[in-house]
Amino acid sequence: MFKEMRRSDRALGEEEILKILDEGLYGILSTSGTDGYAYGVPLSYARQGNTIYMHAAMEGQKLAAIAQNDRVSFCVVGKVATLPEKFSTKYESVIVIGRASILTESEKEPALLALINKYSADYLEQGKAYIDKAKGKTTVIKLAVEHSSGKARR
Amino acid sequence: MFKEMRRSDRALGEEEILKILDEGLYGILSTSGTDGYAYGVPLSYARQGNTIYMHAAMEGQKLAAIAQNDRVSFCVVGKVATLPEKFSTKYESVIVIGRASILTESEKEPALLALINKYSADYLEQGKAYIDKAKGKTTVIKLAVEHSSGKARR
Repeated sequence: MFKEMRRSDRALGEEEILKILDEGLYGILSTSGTDGYAYGVPLSYARQGNTIYMHAAMEGQKLAAIAQNDRVSFCVVGKVATLPEKFSTKYESVIVIGRASILTESEKEPALLALINKYSADYLEQGKAYIDKAKGKTTVIKLAVEHSSGKARR
Repeated sequence: MFKEMRRSDRALGEEEILKILDEGLYGILSTSGTDGYAYGVPLSYARQGNTIYMHAAMEGQKLAAIAQNDRVSFCVVGKVATLPEKFSTKYESVIVIGRASILTESEKEPALLALINKYSADYLEQGKAYIDKAKGKTTVIKLAVEHSSGKARR
């Protein structure tokens, strides 16, 4: 199912994959849309073990897509720089594949805390108050990771 | 089919959309994979009018996905910065939707020239020689844009 990468010399190991995932400010969630198109949208996220939590507005379209087909992928790109004289690009990227679901009200809080810890570590107390206030109108998408791969040209 | 954005105050106009597309170093092409998963992969690209040309290695999986379902999207993210004390993120992003196809041998050259013009403008002559050499093992994906939208929080 997950085909071998073409250039295995550019494949990244587990540790580098986790580093790119943990340092990324956003990733692109790709879903099979309900209208036949595949959609990719940028989302904030936090990783906890083998789970990625993504912060989304209450958008019907994205949620309907996940309800119809929970098989998704999530792409995080690290450092990128052009190599004009080589007609190439330096890059590092990770693609994670798994099953997406929408968290219920009672499941949201720990996931939102993980996001506050990642993006607003200096504002934890205010962040907890913010969660209480914003929880109701926030959607959290959970990605249960089945497979991850990374590659880089540096 | 293309639902109204939730926050219309963050919607970008045509000019800003084109600026983000033209300045982006890479975009994420999302396709409906042949195995039921949606896949997003980062690719170099160049825009010409209403067409986006993407440079890809000869990867069977991506090409098979497009052959099975040519309805894809392409996401380019511009400037991103966290706003820790606001529990939010500044960002600008564009999502383009359309039909993807693989260029034939004879169609490749002008598309590869557009890529050289974007990424290696100072090496045009060498770039033309490079195209002659590398054309055979390079795949170019063409995206005929049907719809584009952008949003930003700044």
